[in-house]
Amino acid sequence: MRSVEWDAGASCLRLIDQRLLPAEFRQVCLHTYEDVAKAIRDMVVRGAPAIGAAAAFGMALAAMRYPARSATALLQHLETEAAPTLKAARPTAVNLAWAVDRVLARARTAVPQGVDAVREAVLDEAQRIADEDVEMNKRMARYGATLIEDGDTIIHHCNTGALATVDWGTALGVIRMAHEQGKRIHVLVDETRPRLQGARLTAWELEQYGIPYDIITDNAAGYFLSRGEVQKVFVGADRVAANGDVANKIGTYMLALAAYDNGVPFYPVVPTSTFDLSLATGREIPIEERDPSEVLDIQYRGRPAMPAGATARNPAFDVTPHRLITAIVTDRGILYPPLDEAIRRVIAAA
Amino acid sequence: MRSVEWDAGASCLRLIDQRLLPAEFRQVCLHTYEDVAKAIRDMVVRGAPAIGAAAAFGMALAAMRYPARSATALLQHLETEAAPTLKAARPTAVNLAWAVDRVLARARTAVPQGVDAVREAVLDEAQRIADEDVEMNKRMARYGATLIEDGDTIIHHCNTGALATVDWGTALGVIRMAHEQGKRIHVLVDETRPRLQGARLTAWELEQYGIPYDIITDNAAGYFLSRGEVQKVFVGADRVAANGDVANKIGTYMLALAAYDNGVPFYPVVPTSTFDLSLATGREIPIEERDPSEVLDIQYRGRPAMPAGATARNPAFDVTPHRLITAIVTDRGILYPPLDEAIRRVIAAA
Repeated sequence: MRSVEWDAGASCLRLIDQRLLPAEFRQVCLHTYEDVAKAIRDMVVRGAPAIGAAAAFGMALAAMRYPARSATALLQHLETEAAPTLKAARPTAVNLAWAVDRVLARARTAVPQGVDAVREAVLDEAQRIADEDVEMNKRMARYGATLIEDGDTIIHHCNTGALATVDWGTALGVIRMAHEQGKRIHVLVDETRPRLQGARLTAWELEQYGIPYDIITDNAAGYFLSRGEVQKVFVGADRVAANGDVANKIGTYMLALAAYDNGVPFYPVVPTSTFDLSLATGREIPIEERDPSEVLDIQYRGRPAMPAGATARNPAFDVTPHRLITAIVTDRGILYPPLDEAIRRVIAAA
Repeated sequence: MRSVEWDAGASCLRLIDQRLLPAEFRQVCLHTYEDVAKAIRDMVVRGAPAIGAAAAFGMALAAMRYPARSATALLQHLETEAAPTLKAARPTAVNLAWAVDRVLARARTAVPQGVDAVREAVLDEAQRIADEDVEMNKRMARYGATLIEDGDTIIHHCNTGALATVDWGTALGVIRMAHEQGKRIHVLVDETRPRLQGARLTAWELEQYGIPYDIITDNAAGYFLSRGEVQKVFVGADRVAANGDVANKIGTYMLALAAYDNGVPFYPVVPTSTFDLSLATGREIPIEERDPSEVLDIQYRGRPAMPAGATARNPAFDVTPHRLITAIVTDRGILYPPLDEAIRRVIAAA
């Protein structure tokens, strides 16, 4: 099962509607690029790689549905209507613009061969983007799985699985690979406030894979680490600076502190595309503060959990300093400290 | 306003029904010791000192309502019926048994003076227990408030205020005292999963006192600490070992780690009655794991936040090692490291 999948029979893009999970599993079938843009905007699909692939298939839908008289007219439609609409759906998602631009570049090369060739090229490129993401994640998962031993209990933060990518994911992909290799593992799932992606999505994915888990509140990770109940911590990353500082979902920094304080290895799992060498340290990574309602709009045992007029602060990410990181798992191998050198080397070799 | 208060006019015990907060403020008026036991069991009232005072007034209600022919018969009723029922309401609450026993001891001294004297003695002792708790908390709050400067932003964990005691509370009492002294402060309220006492009760109390605050998810404390936005952290404690290790609400340890990593002072506020010198270190403090439903039974934006069959682990407390503690605020002054020596000294001087 992929979270983003082309349905060749129905000529539509199938997405798992992640807003309904875990209460309900429903796939939607999208037939136009406008529908895809709306699905991205409404967070039917989330996670940078998944959004990128969805937008690429959105371009394919635009190419397929537009009644073009010439390849040039089709290209113009893609460039001036479909691409801007899709890119605007989540303006800060880097993968989104990258995927759309990659599809456009491929479309341009096919223009001399006519309308059908452009349509084929666009769909083919979208499929490649999706397949490459899956392959890259599986490669990363194989590297990461070498770090996991039979019997390990692992803490995992947020959702970094198939639902955040096209399939497999990053940190959760590592865990899934170790499980498929026959290693017996147990996952303590950080619920990951405020949006509870751990509880809602990661727990749901683990059930699909048959991997045993328990949900914990984010603030309980330190307890389990201090009791010697945890052997490894795996997390994803949204951005990695040149010195190895990692920006990731809020709560990652406190989790890293607790792992470090108890000598438990802490591993971010990160595609090399996520490294940003233009940033010397994590201090330079801008942190988005999101709407307070994400914190406030929860109910405990069916009752409102906060005073009616309460205010909240809601930073979406934090920065984990490289000194707390044991190693970074990438699609090109495992990087050990000194991380600045290891990152420079792996990027230079690309 | 006290959370536990004797209503002399109506001859009943008034409690704030904390299960309804923050959505609804309602006081209940209890007329029998059985009602008080039920209120303690159902967590209408919570927090060790509040439970102790409530049980003491429960004894007063038992003495008042029992149609005793002699002081001896009344004492027997108190000893064999009221006391065991009240003590059994929350078997692990140390203050509860202590308060009931203290009332019984006072009752015994009044037996020679007859039934009415026993009734008066029991009510008087209950009132003393409540008043002494308030006085002790205010003393502690005055010590703690000397640590707060005008303009401070303070992180506070769980609920440690008037709702957890008879009035004032521990860590929240310190914050309230500084506010009443005219210091401008801002509180970042850890929501405190799983039961959200920070969001439900502390935010509500701060509104009553007119102290500005923002609720944050527990896992966001590290972000604010790392950005230099926080000057102090104040927490309560459930038990303190001889070496200064502190057992407190789950999440306290990770909060202390984040404060320490950023050089921000971390202060537990603890009545000296909470020190347990029979325990050499925090390792020996038993930690209760509570029902997983406390973690699982939450809703996000009105929808279930966890898969239907999800399992969870739910440790109620964790242990913060003394090395992370800047000082402990007590009712007998502020204790600075080395904490083991300071604790021995203050207990010996009692």
